Amino acid sequence: MPPPRLAASAAPGSSARRRLVESRAASIGRPPGGLPASTGAASQISAFTYTPGTVAEHPAISVGDACRLAGHGGVTWINVDGVADTVTLAALGEAFGIHPLAVEDIAHTNQRPKLEVYGEQVFIVVQMVGGPGNPDRASEQIAFVLGPDYVLSFQERPGDVFGPVRDRLRTGAGRVRQAGPDYLLYSLLDLVVDGLFTVLEDLGDVIESLEDRVLEDPTVKLQAEIGALRREAVLMRRAVWPLREVLAALQRDDVPHVVANTRVYLRDVYDHLIQAVDVIESLRDVLAALFDLYLSAVSTRQNEVMKALTVIGAVFLPLTFLTGLYGMNFDDMPELHARLGYPILLVTMAVVTIGTLLYFRRRGWL
Amino acid sequence: MPPPRLAASAAPGSSARRRLVESRAASIGRPPGGLPASTGAASQISAFTYTPGTVAEHPAISVGDACRLAGHGGVTWINVDGVADTVTLAALGEAFGIHPLAVEDIAHTNQRPKLEVYGEQVFIVVQMVGGPGNPDRASEQIAFVLGPDYVLSFQERPGDVFGPVRDRLRTGAGRVRQAGPDYLLYSLLDLVVDGLFTVLEDLGDVIESLEDRVLEDPTVKLQAEIGALRREAVLMRRAVWPLREVLAALQRDDVPHVVANTRVYLRDVYDHLIQAVDVIESLRDVLAALFDLYLSAVSTRQNEVMKALTVIGAVFLPLTFLTGLYGMNFDDMPELHARLGYPILLVTMAVVTIGTLLYFRRRGWL
Amino acid sequence: MPPPRLAASAAPGSSARRRLVESRAASIGRPPGGLPASTGAASQISAFTYTPGTVAEHPAISVGDACRLAGHGGVTWINVDGVADTVTLAALGEAFGIHPLAVEDIAHTNQRPKLEVYGEQVFIVVQMVGGPGNPDRASEQIAFVLGPDYVLSFQERPGDVFGPVRDRLRTGAGRVRQAGPDYLLYSLLDLVVDGLFTVLEDLGDVIESLEDRVLEDPTVKLQAEIGALRREAVLMRRAVWPLREVLAALQRDDVPHVVANTRVYLRDVYDHLIQAVDVIESLRDVLAALFDLYLSAVSTRQNEVMKALTVIGAVFLPLTFLTGLYGMNFDDMPELHARLGYPILLVTMAVVTIGTLLYFRRRGWL
Amino acid sequence: MPPPRLAASAAPGSSARRRLVESRAASIGRPPGGLPASTGAASQISAFTYTPGTVAEHPAISVGDACRLAGHGGVTWINVDGVADTVTLAALGEAFGIHPLAVEDIAHTNQRPKLEVYGEQVFIVVQMVGGPGNPDRASEQIAFVLGPDYVLSFQERPGDVFGPVRDRLRTGAGRVRQAGPDYLLYSLLDLVVDGLFTVLEDLGDVIESLEDRVLEDPTVKLQAEIGALRREAVLMRRAVWPLREVLAALQRDDVPHVVANTRVYLRDVYDHLIQAVDVIESLRDVLAALFDLYLSAVSTRQNEVMKALTVIGAVFLPLTFLTGLYGMNFDDMPELHARLGYPILLVTMAVVTIGTLLYFRRRGWL
Amino acid sequence: MPPPRLAASAAPGSSARRRLVESRAASIGRPPGGLPASTGAASQISAFTYTPGTVAEHPAISVGDACRLAGHGGVTWINVDGVADTVTLAALGEAFGIHPLAVEDIAHTNQRPKLEVYGEQVFIVVQMVGGPGNPDRASEQIAFVLGPDYVLSFQERPGDVFGPVRDRLRTGAGRVRQAGPDYLLYSLLDLVVDGLFTVLEDLGDVIESLEDRVLEDPTVKLQAEIGALRREAVLMRRAVWPLREVLAALQRDDVPHVVANTRVYLRDVYDHLIQAVDVIESLRDVLAALFDLYLSAVSTRQNEVMKALTVIGAVFLPLTFLTGLYGMNFDDMPELHARLGYPILLVTMAVVTIGTLLYFRRRGWL
Repeated sequence: MPPPRLAASAAPGSSARRRLVESRAASIGRPPGGLPASTGAASQISAFTYTPGTVAEHPAISVGDACRLAGHGGVTWINVDGVADTVTLAALGEAFGIHPLAVEDIAHTNQRPKLEVYGEQVFIVVQMVGGPGNPDRASEQIAFVLGPDYVLSFQERPGDVFGPVRDRLRTGAGRVRQAGPDYLLYSLLDLVVDGLFTVLEDLGDVIESLEDRVLEDPTVKLQAEIGALRREAVLMRRAVWPLREVLAALQRDDVPHVVANTRVYLRDVYDHLIQAVDVIESLRDVLAALFDLYLSAVSTRQNEVMKALTVIGAVFLPLTFLTGLYGMNFDDMPELHARLGYPILLVTMAVVTIGTLLYFRRRGWL
Repeated sequence: MPPPRLAASAAPGSSARRRLVESRAASIGRPPGGLPASTGAASQISAFTYTPGTVAEHPAISVGDACRLAGHGGVTWINVDGVADTVTLAALGEAFGIHPLAVEDIAHTNQRPKLEVYGEQVFIVVQMVGGPGNPDRASEQIAFVLGPDYVLSFQERPGDVFGPVRDRLRTGAGRVRQAGPDYLLYSLLDLVVDGLFTVLEDLGDVIESLEDRVLEDPTVKLQAEIGALRREAVLMRRAVWPLREVLAALQRDDVPHVVANTRVYLRDVYDHLIQAVDVIESLRDVLAALFDLYLSAVSTRQNEVMKALTVIGAVFLPLTFLTGLYGMNFDDMPELHARLGYPILLVTMAVVTIGTLLYFRRRGWL
Repeated sequence: MPPPRLAASAAPGSSARRRLVESRAASIGRPPGGLPASTGAASQISAFTYTPGTVAEHPAISVGDACRLAGHGGVTWINVDGVADTVTLAALGEAFGIHPLAVEDIAHTNQRPKLEVYGEQVFIVVQMVGGPGNPDRASEQIAFVLGPDYVLSFQERPGDVFGPVRDRLRTGAGRVRQAGPDYLLYSLLDLVVDGLFTVLEDLGDVIESLEDRVLEDPTVKLQAEIGALRREAVLMRRAVWPLREVLAALQRDDVPHVVANTRVYLRDVYDHLIQAVDVIESLRDVLAALFDLYLSAVSTRQNEVMKALTVIGAVFLPLTFLTGLYGMNFDDMPELHARLGYPILLVTMAVVTIGTLLYFRRRGWL
Repeated sequence: MPPPRLAASAAPGSSARRRLVESRAASIGRPPGGLPASTGAASQISAFTYTPGTVAEHPAISVGDACRLAGHGGVTWINVDGVADTVTLAALGEAFGIHPLAVEDIAHTNQRPKLEVYGEQVFIVVQMVGGPGNPDRASEQIAFVLGPDYVLSFQERPGDVFGPVRDRLRTGAGRVRQAGPDYLLYSLLDLVVDGLFTVLEDLGDVIESLEDRVLEDPTVKLQAEIGALRREAVLMRRAVWPLREVLAALQRDDVPHVVANTRVYLRDVYDHLIQAVDVIESLRDVLAALFDLYLSAVSTRQNEVMKALTVIGAVFLPLTFLTGLYGMNFDDMPELHARLGYPILLVTMAVVTIGTLLYFRRRGWL
Repeated sequence: MPPPRLAASAAPGSSARRRLVESRAASIGRPPGGLPASTGAASQISAFTYTPGTVAEHPAISVGDACRLAGHGGVTWINVDGVADTVTLAALGEAFGIHPLAVEDIAHTNQRPKLEVYGEQVFIVVQMVGGPGNPDRASEQIAFVLGPDYVLSFQERPGDVFGPVRDRLRTGAGRVRQAGPDYLLYSLLDLVVDGLFTVLEDLGDVIESLEDRVLEDPTVKLQAEIGALRREAVLMRRAVWPLREVLAALQRDDVPHVVANTRVYLRDVYDHLIQAVDVIESLRDVLAALFDLYLSAVSTRQNEVMKALTVIGAVFLPLTFLTGLYGMNFDDMPELHARLGYPILLVTMAVVTIGTLLYFRRRGWL
């Protein structure tokens, strides 16, 4: 089990905390299909071309190369790392005939997951949370374009989230080389959904460790961690929920290029996603219950503190009163001059004290 | 990032606070289609006429001018600033054949967002929150009438919320001059939805700043701010939710004047709206969790105060009792006359005090 | 703005408080269509007959007169004030061929709003809350029977809730005289929905005034008012929610006597109702948040009280201990006989006190 | 109004408390259609046979008699009191051709309400709560079998819950003798739904009495009563909710033996049930609000107690300090020997006390 | 009734506690249809073959035997105990033509319940909680494959959960030998659903015992138990909810090998499942109410403690002040020398004390 990284990274004030609402200021009022200025970090294009019997890998190619590779007879997978280089995006969009709205969605991260059929192309954008190449669980936007014999994938940040599929392509393991681009798309989406589970397991472990601590040690820090986890769960839910519609839409008959054989696999990944949704919902329930438990643990603690104070007051206030009584300076206080005055008072005090303590013990306050 | 203005403007007692229920007293019992008396501030009518190659701007025109402009061959956009001038509204309604119920809805602000097809016209009314020309986030009613070759837009208050679209018309940027009135309507609705995000970002920033403060400084003021934000989120939700139905209805096949090409853009703005709805829901969840956190922070504080009091009492009440004991005036108290009586008592007191403090430290109260 | 009457009338123990569950004991086990015994207060029947050009008013008529008026060529509106006079109800039911179940529902108030088509008649029962002739916001049952050329309306209590429509009939304002009985029914239902808004505005005003007070003055009385308002909102929701189904059903194609022209008006009143439902839901949310705010205001207050007590204890308990120390009667206490013993002690006390206060100020307790 | 019996009977520890989950241990793993061993209390079979003009009552008949009565030309209603006598149930099932699963459901009480069409028979099982012959509101299972010319009803316990329908059959009141077995079934179901309202009224009365007490007297007992009522409402909801599906299913076209004329009556009883569901939901809301009110009443009380303690401490701790000051035994304390030392101190004390009290009054703590 | 084992086994820190999120790390990135390495514990295969008149039992057979048994003319039930032996699973999958995704789902436990039709086979995977052979209520994955004349069942762990069906096959009780493999599948699913009720009863019993204790003894332990039960209910819900879809899907017309006669039994088991879902929902409601009750019981306790402290302070602080007053050393304090000074003071103290106590009694604090 990897060490739970969540609580720390999501703590209030932490710079790694995800924003509640991502800024869209840059795109407001611009015509649809417009792209922000290129911010310099050039996109890296790489490609796989394969048939059942062959596979070729093309690292670091140009847009023109990418265009030539597609249509060579087998299946072509073109992966683009980094979407800030809008010049390259625009050129790719031009070369592959991608709808301007789709290109815009690729360039503007923080899109809501969606599937749109533009003519002969299926455009999908999802938010990936977790996954093998994504250790700190920031959400990363991944976009896919499915054509008749190619898949384009756009990763927001460079990274190796698709490594397992690359390995299977290289070794020919599984069905991926035997099948068409729809199966490749399925394999990539499967990785996205599997990535969710790495985060959910992590969340589950953190929550379980909190469950063990909440009754013994209800500190402010623990309360902050519960709060951060609730926030995290709310954001997870927002990212995952619309993915359902995407995966459901992908199984519809009117989506081009998805063959019947692949649909059973899509249903499988859809089932996994629903399981993730179930898990998120139950984690939210558990977190709400955990917070209640925290509150009641604090209340119970407070009760103990109050009881302690009350017991102390109940013991010493009467005693102090008695000492004050015989510290008075009246001329005529016969007790003061009685031979056994002092010892009798001491015994009285002991009796009062023991009586009080017994009384509190009977009421369960000690 | 603009400075968060929200918390202040929405605080209880602030005059800028939005009303929970807007008054409809004026319209009760009147026949449908009736208009309130004109309140004098004359509506400003302006227009754009354009074709793919040409554009003409017509500021400050009359109702008659407006009517003549429509039907000139290209697309006409007539914008009306201010809806209190019911005489002008009635004249426009007459000139363009707008259904009396639609004219009534334009004049009575605070309508629920709706889309209604009246014969050959599509009538839409929405509530705009935020946006470039709307800095203080009051909700503004915007109504649209889509005809075969024109769009009428009615703004509740003068302002420049449609500035970006005007600029695109003037410069010919994007597709707006190439397309029909339905695309113009889409562009305007897109601005309305984008406006939401400016407010939501603002809200998100305010909430994040509260998250940082809630555990360190749970004051009454912070609690009032959380309360005001929850109220704000409730009202946002009420304004935004019905917009979904409007945008969904606009994509239906039986809505006239909306061509297939435009529908993909409408789906895009619909997706953005759904994202806004998701964000509002998650902000509500985060605010509820934040309030819980506030409550528990107060409880935890109270616990600390209680512990402090208890420790003080536990230390000084026994000591005071001891001093009282030897302040008594009994004739026969041998301790008082012992040579080391006083130093022994002082040492005893020190031991009792240190023991008490150690005990509390072990229980974690210090 | 009328003064908010709500809080008082709905307060616990107030005789004006609406019951949570209305008694149905009288009707249990009786055959359907049966009527309770007439309780003497005779129903008042009045009627309007009108055509586009003419209108005649018939106050205080008999059942026979009512029957003769219907079928005279134009539209007839027969209004019945009071439903306790079951003899008259039965006679009217007989004369107009109303289904026994409908007659029963008219006589038994507290029905759930419903629409039922009995042969050629449309039967509607609604609960009216608020409205011009209904100042104290008790819920009043209103039933309608729509026939081919007549509308029967049954008011639970005499009153002038339909005054505005009567005025429009008399003066010929609006379309009501031009249209059929379906439009008359619409006009009456529109009044019912408008009535809701008078109550909702009142509720909104009361809630806003509570919002201003809750943080400054969280008293038991305020808490009782919030509680009464939550109850009120729950009952409002129960009364209004089923009205949606009634108004939606009225727009269905299979409802007789409702012409296409009238449907656009019915959609309009339906939209208003949905807005009322939205408002009720958001008021409920606001009230829940308000209650949370109350609770946390009480907690914060308590914290202040605790802090005050702790500060007082922290200041005076050590001082009192010191005075006790030097009030002891040991033979050998050198400090007592030191020349500056008393002043030094006074200075020490001052230093301890100031130190304590500075400490508390630094911790923010002062 | 009958005295509210609820709170007592549902209190924790009360033997009358309904179980949260009824035991099904006896039926686990047995083949479907199997019956538990007969537990001896013989079922009582009685019957009514009637036509529009005639009615005959047959108390205490055998299974064979029952079988002979059905098919005599009119309608036969066979009522079975007690379902523990599985021998009789099996014989009846055999004689009337009831599906084994239906017989099993009759014998095993605590079924979820359901409607199932077995061939030519309609089988209905419901849970009756309340009603004329069911004073303590335990849930009783009632099963019905509707055949072409008979209705079989099975009551879990002997009792007179169907008394009103028997009376109407005997006297010929209402339509029941004129109509078929479907109308008889409707009449019996109507009694079941009416029974709910007796319980709901009772619940409403109890809740209203708690509303009056909660702010004045928030005791542990009241809290226990609110808790018991919430539990009761949860169980009511569980019993009533599935009844909706049963009554909705009974109106479907494919249910045999239910004629069109009867459907309007079934819609009526369905409407009543929906009203009951609405009432339960709003009672749940009211109870949740009531519990909140209780909690805040306790908090407010605690605040008062704290204030009292703080005021007492603030008044007496300084005074006691002053007395301690002048009880010290320093040699050189000039105040002690001043002529007006004592009176001046007394006045000082009075001034401090009055000042403290005025301060607290100004802060609203007195 | 078996002793409630729940609270203990689900307590925080208990090793028996179910994990919130089960690990899927092993399967991430692998091609679909892949199996984990066999972990050595060989699967046990056993079989029943039966016709209406005959039955044969085949314990401990090989994959080849299993394959030969199916297709012998009657119905074959092959049960596999243990799914860690992936070599055997793969061989069975090969022999029976099971889809690779199904085989993968069988091998990877913690699947979400699902039904999938792969060609001519129906694949079902469910999570069984409770049941006769499953005393500690860990969730166990059970998978079924329904073919034209056989049922394959895969149990995650060896055990006798299907014992009752085996007994019925052996003795010929019920319809199971008369019917086809679909009825056998129904019988096994019925056991799964019945198993739920054993757990739910257990949960209900534990909750009822907590209900009895919560007001009398609101300890930390009880609070931990409530928390553990809420967690348990959340996990139960997650396991049971998707089972609804499985059982609903099994009744659809397009599921092969399920005959019409069996559907009425499937509806019956579906009804039982819905009842279980209802029960879980109501237990969740009851647990939430129970937690509220706990919180308010703690508050009420705290109130009592506060009152005790306040009463003690209110009684002794004034008395101590009075003793301090007359312990002062002013030269001129006439009371000290008055003949009845001391007795008068004692009487005054008694009066003050009695007055204070009476005051508190009147306010209900004693």
